[in-house]
Amino acid sequence: MSSNSPVAVLGLGAMGTALATAFLTGGHPTTVWNRTPGKAVPLVALGATRADDVAAAVTAGELVVVCLLDHASVHATLAPVAAELAGRTLVNLTNGTPAQARETAAWAAAHGIAYVDGGIMAVPPGIGTDQAFVLYSGAEEAFAAHRPTLERLGAAHFVGADAGLAALHDIALLSGMYGMFAGVFHALALVGTEKVPATEFAPMLTSWIGAMAAGIPHMAAQVASGDYTDGVVSNAAMQAAAFGNLLRTADDQGISGELIAPLRPLLDRLVAEGGGAGDVTGIVELLKKPA
Amino acid sequence: MSSNSPVAVLGLGAMGTALATAFLTGGHPTTVWNRTPGKAVPLVALGATRADDVAAAVTAGELVVVCLLDHASVHATLAPVAAELAGRTLVNLTNGTPAQARETAAWAAAHGIAYVDGGIMAVPPGIGTDQAFVLYSGAEEAFAAHRPTLERLGAAHFVGADAGLAALHDIALLSGMYGMFAGVFHALALVGTEKVPATEFAPMLTSWIGAMAAGIPHMAAQVASGDYTDGVVSNAAMQAAAFGNLLRTADDQGISGELIAPLRPLLDRLVAEGGGAGDVTGIVELLKKPA
Repeated sequence: MSSNSPVAVLGLGAMGTALATAFLTGGHPTTVWNRTPGKAVPLVALGATRADDVAAAVTAGELVVVCLLDHASVHATLAPVAAELAGRTLVNLTNGTPAQARETAAWAAAHGIAYVDGGIMAVPPGIGTDQAFVLYSGAEEAFAAHRPTLERLGAAHFVGADAGLAALHDIALLSGMYGMFAGVFHALALVGTEKVPATEFAPMLTSWIGAMAAGIPHMAAQVASGDYTDGVVSNAAMQAAAFGNLLRTADDQGISGELIAPLRPLLDRLVAEGGGAGDVTGIVELLKKPA
Repeated sequence: MSSNSPVAVLGLGAMGTALATAFLTGGHPTTVWNRTPGKAVPLVALGATRADDVAAAVTAGELVVVCLLDHASVHATLAPVAAELAGRTLVNLTNGTPAQARETAAWAAAHGIAYVDGGIMAVPPGIGTDQAFVLYSGAEEAFAAHRPTLERLGAAHFVGADAGLAALHDIALLSGMYGMFAGVFHALALVGTEKVPATEFAPMLTSWIGAMAAGIPHMAAQVASGDYTDGVVSNAAMQAAAFGNLLRTADDQGISGELIAPLRPLLDRLVAEGGGAGDVTGIVELLKKPA
């Protein structure tokens, strides 16, 4: 596609608006549609064309980007225009699960639509900056053809032909982030019980989390090999024994330990099932086999 | 203290051995003691003096560093030598809680012992390298006098005169780390369900966690001000609505969501209590007021 190939954006919430803005800023003729048309006004001021209906939007070019409220909205919006979408590329950046992505991919395949599912790893103000990246999976040729346009949004990572893989990676990254946030919330609540200023503690916590995150590739290597005893410096048995101090301190200081508590039974189960000499990364195997 | 002032180390587990080794390497006459004396042999080979009993160890110099199994071991070991410890500095690096540190500080004060409690933020192989840091709290003058010796172990951070503060910081940092680990375990289990190589996913996860950790100082500023609506880009109501996809995906892919699940009720409660327009950092307040 040329550097100014046209694109249609369906859904003009905060994220859809940011996507359309990035395409416009990149010089792409951009057609926009939203269920409530008022959302298009600021984009029209930036040069966008407002489509009166979904069919007019999806026939404006070869590339159709949708960013709607949820999976149900995607199907309600696109089902009536399946014929118009045939032969075009549909890039779905709506939040969703891998199963939902595969369902939409199957629907698209049945209608001759090239389907690419995506997961946006950025908040709306980050779109179009070097801090954004977007995961894509599905129709690889269609993705490659539109890659220069899609790169207006941020760095583009294609993670596989299975349409569910972008959502899988997206949700795995978000899960990692929320785990980290949960630990940070607990830590900030804890130091607050003794009037330690959160802003004084924060740089220590940030650098500690960064230092510990440097161990993630080693954890991944253990998961890949299935050998959790490789390179252990603080084994699961020791960590399980010391973990009680974390919960006891939460109790002593009068805060809820609910965000860190779920590790306790997993550490104990890991030791009980023979993983005490290995690293705590062995918990990954326990999550794969829910009790 | 001079750069080669003597030090005694009580407790020669993996960590105590690493501490004694760092003092010896730094040129300090080092006296060591362990309940089972065989543990001293490799240190004697490095130049340490083995004390026959606890009293002989604690009277070898002005500075006594203990790193025992737990709080109970500290008291069982030191109670009989309280008179010998009087007038000296006791630095307790045994894992423990803030309440335990304060209890030991009170005991030390009653016996005329200068008490410093510490939390080691390193694994034994890291001791004496620039990757180690140790938190200290308690008797500030005694700490300052022995600081050059203690810096043989790693960077020294004095966090306050309340002896419980080192353990509080230590446990807060560990809680943050375990939260992050929990998220990483979940993420690795999740991508594993689709045979995505963990080692391929790991660099993406590491850089994502690092990028998100850069937001910790902003979270801390919100906690400090109590204003969780300052600089919000993705509010709690939106995050609460999207969080279901994380749990649904864990279910769909057949892994346990137990490590991320506890955020769900807190997000819902934050929104129900009026925090929906603010940042998810508002959860810190909920942890301080257990339901």
